[in-house]
Amino acid sequence: MNSFNQLQVVVEQEIDAYKRIHPVTTLTESIHYLMGVTGKRVRPVLTLMGAELFGGKASDAIHAALAIEVFHNFTLMHDDIMDAAPLRRGKPTVHVKWNTNTAILSGDAMLIQAYQLLCKCPEEKLSSLMHLFNESAFGVCAGQQMDMDFEKRSDVSVEEYIEMIRLKTAVLLGCALDLGACIAGATESQMVHLREFGECLGISFQLRDDYLDAFGDPSVFGKQVGGDIIADKKTYLLIRAFEKATIEQRSILNQYSGSTSDSTVKVEAIRTVMSELAVDQEILALSSSYYSRAIAHLEALELPAERTEPLRRLADYLLERQS
Amino acid sequence: MNSFNQLQVVVEQEIDAYKRIHPVTTLTESIHYLMGVTGKRVRPVLTLMGAELFGGKASDAIHAALAIEVFHNFTLMHDDIMDAAPLRRGKPTVHVKWNTNTAILSGDAMLIQAYQLLCKCPEEKLSSLMHLFNESAFGVCAGQQMDMDFEKRSDVSVEEYIEMIRLKTAVLLGCALDLGACIAGATESQMVHLREFGECLGISFQLRDDYLDAFGDPSVFGKQVGGDIIADKKTYLLIRAFEKATIEQRSILNQYSGSTSDSTVKVEAIRTVMSELAVDQEILALSSSYYSRAIAHLEALELPAERTEPLRRLADYLLERQS
Repeated sequence: MNSFNQLQVVVEQEIDAYKRIHPVTTLTESIHYLMGVTGKRVRPVLTLMGAELFGGKASDAIHAALAIEVFHNFTLMHDDIMDAAPLRRGKPTVHVKWNTNTAILSGDAMLIQAYQLLCKCPEEKLSSLMHLFNESAFGVCAGQQMDMDFEKRSDVSVEEYIEMIRLKTAVLLGCALDLGACIAGATESQMVHLREFGECLGISFQLRDDYLDAFGDPSVFGKQVGGDIIADKKTYLLIRAFEKATIEQRSILNQYSGSTSDSTVKVEAIRTVMSELAVDQEILALSSSYYSRAIAHLEALELPAERTEPLRRLADYLLERQS
Repeated sequence: MNSFNQLQVVVEQEIDAYKRIHPVTTLTESIHYLMGVTGKRVRPVLTLMGAELFGGKASDAIHAALAIEVFHNFTLMHDDIMDAAPLRRGKPTVHVKWNTNTAILSGDAMLIQAYQLLCKCPEEKLSSLMHLFNESAFGVCAGQQMDMDFEKRSDVSVEEYIEMIRLKTAVLLGCALDLGACIAGATESQMVHLREFGECLGISFQLRDDYLDAFGDPSVFGKQVGGDIIADKKTYLLIRAFEKATIEQRSILNQYSGSTSDSTVKVEAIRTVMSELAVDQEILALSSSYYSRAIAHLEALELPAERTEPLRRLADYLLERQS
């Protein structure tokens, strides 16, 4: 069993090799650029951990791991256009550094490359891997569509919000794990538990991220604190604040929603209402409950503790993070 | 052996069924719309013909046929954004009727759906089908990139131009045929000939389309005659005109290239130079030579004439068209 850091090194080496075998053209240079704006490589590491969990070798799952990472970067490239995001991890986004057409086309090429990488997996597993991958990939698109639809709606429910983050963020974590598990020969029921572990972990992570976006320490949180509030994002915090608000509190929320005046005043006013209604504590409790559900699914696998240890550590690392 | 028209009916029925099983959501409604802006369904029919050519049943190849058509429509949806095209077959394009974000995301979903359809093909063929499909799909992106790169260049060669139209248009015809042939059990060497038939046919078709764009009869040509000239597209005609031009002719070409003044005058002036240099006859001769190469590859299959008849008829239909 390898640790997160050890598997991260394996993934980075493979990404370097991947860049070397794809010559730099006008089509690929933006792909290499985005793949090089280093992230934590959580998803491909999950694939390798999914394989090791069932006694498989990380090297057997490396192409599936890379497929997941390339797919994830494809979603980032296209989401950044849709969100008109100027920066990604502090660097200019592809549609800004090049242009929108390049970001559209290079993203398309990445999605195809993800499938090319999947095709390098053991042939007898290809059909199963493809089914897992396709369903999750389509789910990610459906999640992004829900997110965009929410911008125009004022009646988003908590259930819809959870379903949106499940599709947009969590299913890919579950899929990443299951691809590795499938390659290592896990049973169907084991794969269901592992996917649920990944999805619950993803929802727990996203809820905590939403909390940190509003209430995190600006000195440690990587993004601008209050960004979701400024953008009027219908996160759990805002949905629940509207649901629980008194008439007075609701009028404050309405006064600032959609307002583009002084963002510091807006963030402070809405955050105050959220705190008064204790939705900050509520979201942390909900995040914890999804974390517990994740761990329960991991335990349901009834595997030796040393097998599941790297996944527990990774879960703790993701959830204890301050940024 | 079924005719083009018979197979077209099969494809249309399957597209209707495909729409019924995918419920209308904000993600899929633009997909249904574009799939319904009826084209000739040449590509999926080629897949069915590829299967029947080797004694397979059209029904065995129907999912592969649909995968090709959905993929083709995905490229249309994204290309229309990149080309800022307002109309597609006389109807508003998706990015105009909805918006750019919808066209990006629905296009992504279509690319994934194409792979979902491929997964419905016989499992023992999946790996081969995926390899064929992936290579062509990536080639189509590379062709679109070349086309965009050409806009900024003044030194595009005839060889580069042919390679661009091969990738952007022709490889998908070859791939469509080969998917059907693969499902019906064709050998590797048969698939090479069939792919070459498709690619040569595609290049022949595109060259003829370029001719018609400049010299076609406005009353029968579906698009605006002279559109490529107005947009300064580096087609074979313009590349060869620049290559063969005298000093005087070159100064006329230069005078109008990039000019946005009177488009009627521009089209007439450039078309006159092209005629003087006989590049109009040259492009027709080159189109014919690719047609002959296509037929030679079909004959190299050494199959009974009644087997290859539908493909010959389709080739003739595509090449004799005036619009």
